[in-house]
Amino acid sequence: MEIPLKPDEDLIVVKLGGSVITKKSDDKPELNEENLKRLAKEIADALAENEKKLFLVHGAGPFGHIFAKKYNLHLGLHDEKQIEGIGITHRWMQLLNYNVVLALQEEGIKAMPFQPSAGGILCDGKLVQFPLNIVEKFLDMGIVVVSHGDVLLDNRTGIGILSGDHLAPYIAHNLRASRLILGTDVPGVFTKDPKKNPDAKQIPVITPGNIDDVVEELAGSTATDVTGGMARKVLELLDLAKKGIESEIIDITKPGVLYKALTGEKGLGTIIRRE
Amino acid sequence: MEIPLKPDEDLIVVKLGGSVITKKSDDKPELNEENLKRLAKEIADALAENEKKLFLVHGAGPFGHIFAKKYNLHLGLHDEKQIEGIGITHRWMQLLNYNVVLALQEEGIKAMPFQPSAGGILCDGKLVQFPLNIVEKFLDMGIVVVSHGDVLLDNRTGIGILSGDHLAPYIAHNLRASRLILGTDVPGVFTKDPKKNPDAKQIPVITPGNIDDVVEELAGSTATDVTGGMARKVLELLDLAKKGIESEIIDITKPGVLYKALTGEKGLGTIIRRE
Repeated sequence: MEIPLKPDEDLIVVKLGGSVITKKSDDKPELNEENLKRLAKEIADALAENEKKLFLVHGAGPFGHIFAKKYNLHLGLHDEKQIEGIGITHRWMQLLNYNVVLALQEEGIKAMPFQPSAGGILCDGKLVQFPLNIVEKFLDMGIVVVSHGDVLLDNRTGIGILSGDHLAPYIAHNLRASRLILGTDVPGVFTKDPKKNPDAKQIPVITPGNIDDVVEELAGSTATDVTGGMARKVLELLDLAKKGIESEIIDITKPGVLYKALTGEKGLGTIIRRE
Repeated sequence: MEIPLKPDEDLIVVKLGGSVITKKSDDKPELNEENLKRLAKEIADALAENEKKLFLVHGAGPFGHIFAKKYNLHLGLHDEKQIEGIGITHRWMQLLNYNVVLALQEEGIKAMPFQPSAGGILCDGKLVQFPLNIVEKFLDMGIVVVSHGDVLLDNRTGIGILSGDHLAPYIAHNLRASRLILGTDVPGVFTKDPKKNPDAKQIPVITPGNIDDVVEELAGSTATDVTGGMARKVLELLDLAKKGIESEIIDITKPGVLYKALTGEKGLGTIIRRE
């Protein structure tokens, strides 16, 4: 018999995709200041209307991926030269995190930075240690905790990538969020990469009933990065759905979409739920 | 019977005083880039000569103190308006930490940032939770871990200040460092504030034998900040000395002094030791 704890109806976990808040210029990481400012405003407006506890995770974009790839940090620790790359990647992620927190604070949001590598440990890419008690207390104070994808210790591989797409459902599960919103640059999950295939079809709802078909279709997709592709993301979200936490993948490059999602609107992208 | 673990002869903990690496300009925090670059070079030179594990703590200077004071964060959590100040102070400390790590990396040091508020908890101003296992693993990899004074959760007062002068001996004790070097802007402990009293005498060695006289003299000194004054610092270092870890307070505004201390020279300032 399962006696689940009630969800924390006030807690929402939001992921801001790295591709939305960053860009690459001459192979150097840059902020997408326009998107960042707009999203900060949408979050501030939503919080003003509807006070919530918010845990925010942002992806890395080129701030993390350029360096993680250069030093092969996604392949575990196997080479003295990687050691230098760990701190360099941390520093770039710190700079991105600083700018996200600054953008939020400029809109009046009580945001704080939160470095995952200073408290978290992976084992084979999955979090096995994370200071949830600290996160929970800051959230209870009304602080928007702003964390990110990062390079963490890994008990099996030495070093590994914590992707924002793993951290977000981990927090949602362990702090019993009412909802997880994943903001990306496409309006949900598609049968094919929608940027390359005009005939790609959007999948409005994913449940245990249709997951096999979805994964089969996604397996044909080539989109991948150091954090793993869309299929891995969807399977993790389905696991979360089975635990009772619904998530939705939405397109936050479109103005107003994140605001709508934060104020309770559903069906803006692909919903992943239990049934 | 006490069976102490052997010290880790390779591990040195170094504190870089906030007053040395920062300055205030029009009441805004600024880096002291000249000192920072020089100190990074001295550390790089010392590590090249004498490979060591290094845990580095930097103080806050105006990056932390302006905001901690503005929001009374050193007085515990008692007011809704303080919540905003927590994240603002974190963000400024993050910016300072970023710049310290950058300066070290520019000299070829394998440095990484380490945010204490993302893994540490205080109780009445003393650390009662800190991810030592994570710090230890990064140090073992050869990474210079760069942490700092910060605003942490406090189990009794809600929120409290972790001073670099508490974090440094805490790490030295718990990871059994061979030595703790505290870099400030005066060459050790004086009978009076040496900046105001030309007749102030430097105290070359502090031990349990002369600590009472020293504290009595320091009690007359007015120097204090949000982290507590010199007497508190010296008493914590004497506690550390009793556990077998010697420390020295040196003047790192003078070129070459930090390099000398890191390569083993002693008697550059005030030594605090067991006997």
